[in-house]
Amino acid sequence: MLTCYACGARAESGQRCDCGEPLWYETDPAGVAWPDADAGGVWAFESLLPVGRPESGLATAAGGTPLVRAPTLDADGARVHVKLEGTNPTGSFKDRGSAVGVTAALAAGRERVGTVSHGNMAASMAANAAGTDLDCVVLVPADIPDERLARIGAYGPRVVRVEGDYGRLYHDSLDVAGVEFVNSDSPLRVAGQKTTVLEVLAERAPDVPDAVVMPVSSGGHASAAWKALREAEAAGLVDDPPRLYLVQAAACAPVAAAFDRGDEEVVRLAPDEVGETVAYSIANPDPPSGTRALAAARATGGAVLAADDDDIGAARDWMARAGFRVEAASATPLAALGRLRDAGEIEAGEDVVLVATGAGYGDDAPPESVETVRREGLAGALRAD
Amino acid sequence: MLTCYACGARAESGQRCDCGEPLWYETDPAGVAWPDADAGGVWAFESLLPVGRPESGLATAAGGTPLVRAPTLDADGARVHVKLEGTNPTGSFKDRGSAVGVTAALAAGRERVGTVSHGNMAASMAANAAGTDLDCVVLVPADIPDERLARIGAYGPRVVRVEGDYGRLYHDSLDVAGVEFVNSDSPLRVAGQKTTVLEVLAERAPDVPDAVVMPVSSGGHASAAWKALREAEAAGLVDDPPRLYLVQAAACAPVAAAFDRGDEEVVRLAPDEVGETVAYSIANPDPPSGTRALAAARATGGAVLAADDDDIGAARDWMARAGFRVEAASATPLAALGRLRDAGEIEAGEDVVLVATGAGYGDDAPPESVETVRREGLAGALRAD
Ligand SMILES: [Zn+2]
Ligand SMILES: [Zn+2]
Repeated sequence: MLTCYACGARAESGQRCDCGEPLWYETDPAGVAWPDADAGGVWAFESLLPVGRPESGLATAAGGTPLVRAPTLDADGARVHVKLEGTNPTGSFKDRGSAVGVTAALAAGRERVGTVSHGNMAASMAANAAGTDLDCVVLVPADIPDERLARIGAYGPRVVRVEGDYGRLYHDSLDVAGVEFVNSDSPLRVAGQKTTVLEVLAERAPDVPDAVVMPVSSGGHASAAWKALREAEAAGLVDDPPRLYLVQAAACAPVAAAFDRGDEEVVRLAPDEVGETVAYSIANPDPPSGTRALAAARATGGAVLAADDDDIGAARDWMARAGFRVEAASATPLAALGRLRDAGEIEAGEDVVLVATGAGYGDDAPPESVETVRREGLAGALRAD
Repeated sequence: MLTCYACGARAESGQRCDCGEPLWYETDPAGVAWPDADAGGVWAFESLLPVGRPESGLATAAGGTPLVRAPTLDADGARVHVKLEGTNPTGSFKDRGSAVGVTAALAAGRERVGTVSHGNMAASMAANAAGTDLDCVVLVPADIPDERLARIGAYGPRVVRVEGDYGRLYHDSLDVAGVEFVNSDSPLRVAGQKTTVLEVLAERAPDVPDAVVMPVSSGGHASAAWKALREAEAAGLVDDPPRLYLVQAAACAPVAAAFDRGDEEVVRLAPDEVGETVAYSIANPDPPSGTRALAAARATGGAVLAADDDDIGAARDWMARAGFRVEAASATPLAALGRLRDAGEIEAGEDVVLVATGAGYGDDAPPESVETVRREGLAGALRAD
C-alpha cells in the first residue's frame, strides 16, 4: 500500500499522487523491534520493507554501514558521529534503494529495471541488477564524461545517451512502458533508503541522537530519513526523534530557498539561477521530492541550509584529516555544522550525526609538495624532530 | 606474546624471529565463541586481538564486510561466495590491520606510525591515523604517480618519496627508531587481517566453507587467514577447516614458483624474472611472509597458483557483470577457479569463498560503444525488443 504524505491519498501502485506529490510505502510498525546493532544491513529491517531479503547477489550486501564517533569534528561541544555510506558495495547510500528496487522488481516478475542518473545511482542500479535475471537501462546525458561512463559501464547495463532536456527525463521515464524505473525518489528507493536512519537509531538505542544532518538533492533520501523517524516513533522505539537538517550546495539550492522564504512548496530553478558546484552530485534544480523534504525539515524541527563551494571544499579536507574521504556533496553537512551551532540550532552536549553519503574515490588533488630522501638517509630524515 | 610458526621461538616484541621468519601474536582461544554474523567488524573478535576496541575514530569501522552468494560465478557445480573487502572504510582489507596497528600504537603511547606502501596500505594507514594523536609517515617510491599520491595525501600524513631500491625499504624500516612501522606482514597487521577469515567462518557457522581462494603478495593476508583457521580449530569452533588457495599474477609469482618446485622456501625474484601486470598491487618479488604463505597453503591442503593478465582481466570483467567491481588483483581468485575446478582441487557441491581484497575505484575503461537517442524517441527506443 502506497500513501501520499501531503493529502493522505492511498494507491496500489504508481510513483506519484494525483495531487502531484510523491508516494511512499505505508508500513505496519506494530511489534517492530531494533535488530542487533550493525547486523544484517538493509534486510535487518525486512519487516518494514515492501519485499523480503533475497537469497543471493549484491542486493544482499547493502547497508550495515559504520557510525563512527569523530571527536576531531566536534563543533564547540556538540558531539559528531559520521555515518559512513561510502562503505556500501558501490560506494554510496544509493545501494540501499537499489537493493530494494531490484529485489522487488524480481519478485514482481519484471524483466527490466532502469534509472535516470549519470552518477552514484546509475552505478548502483547497474551493479545491483548485474548477475540477476533483470536487464538494466541507464539513461545518461549525451555529454557524460568518459570516466563516469566507465564506472557505470563496468557492470554491463544498457547505457543510453539522451539528447534533449535531461532535467525532464525523470518525468518522461514514468511514462515508459515495460521498465521499472527506480529513480531518486521512487517508493521502492525511499523504502530502502530509510534504513540509513533506521540503522543510526538502532545502533544508538536506547540513546537517540539530537540531530541528523544530511545533503539534499532530489529529496528522496531526506524523505526516507523522515519516514524512518515516523516509523520509529509509531513503533514506540523513539520518543523524541532527532531534528533533520538538510544541506544544499549554494549554487543550486531550490529547497533551501523555499525554506528561507517560508514557502510550503519548492519551485524549479530557472537555468540562470543555477551555477556550477564541486558538489555536482546534489545539484538538482528541480527536485521531485523537494517539497516533501522541506516538510520533513519543518516537521522535525530542523532546517534547510545552503553551503558555498569554499566551505564545502574546506569541510571535505577537514573530513579527510579526520580519516573520512568523501565526495564533495558528503561534506555539505560538516560545512553547515558551524553555522547551525552558532545559531543555537544545535547545542553543546548534543549528539549530531553527519550522513556522509558517498565515497568519491578518485576526486583528490595531489599534495602540493612532498619531501624526497635517499634510502640511505631515511633513518636520519625520520629521527624525531 | 609473539611466536614463530616455523621454529616455535617466542618473543616479547619485534617483527621477525632470529630464524628469519615473521612473528605473529599468540592467542588463547579458550572460551572463544562466534559473535553475531556481521556485527562489530574487526572488534567482534576483540578477545583474539592484541588490543581492545577503541572509543572513536575510523579504526572502529574496519571489517564487518559482506559475504555474498554469487550464483553466476559458480564453477561447474562449486558454489561461489564473494567476501567484499572493498566495503572497508578506505576500500580494501588493509583497514583491518591498520585499525589494529593504529589502536595498539596509541595504547602503547607511541607518537608515530608508518608504512612502506604506495597503494591501498598507505591510504589505509594514513586514514586510520588521521584524527588520532599519532603522526603517520608513509614511504613511497620517488616515481609514484600523481593519482596515487593524491589518494594517500588526502588524509594529511607525512609522505616521503624515497630514492633507491624501494624493494629493500621493508627491511630498512624495521631499523628506524621512533616509528611503529605497520607493514604488510607486521604482527599487528596480521592480527587485524585474520578477521577476514574469522568473519567468513562466523557468518557461515555452523557450516564451514570447503575452500578459501585469495590473492597473495607479501603473504601477510594469507598468513593471517591461516592463523584464523588455526585459532578457530583450537577453539573447537571448526572441525574441518577450509583449504587455502593462494593466487599470484604470473608476471611476478615467487610463491607459486616455490610451490610448483616443491620447495619449502620462497626465493626473491631477480629483476629479469619480474614483468608488468595489471594486478600491480600484488606484484611483490620479495614477499616477506612468502615462505609462511607457502606453508599455509600446504598445511591446509590447498595450493598456490599463478594467473596471467588475460585471465585476470577476463575474470575482473566477469565479476563486474555479477555486480562486483574490484581491482585487478582481487580478480585473481576467480581467474584461478576454473583451473582448480578442472583439476579436481575443488569439487561440485563445495562452497568456495573468493576474497575480493579491494574496490579499485577508478580503474575502468569506458564502454566501446553507447547508443544515443533523442528524448522524444525514448519510449520507442526502450520498447521491449
Ligand atoms: Zn497527494
Ligand atoms: Zn623462528
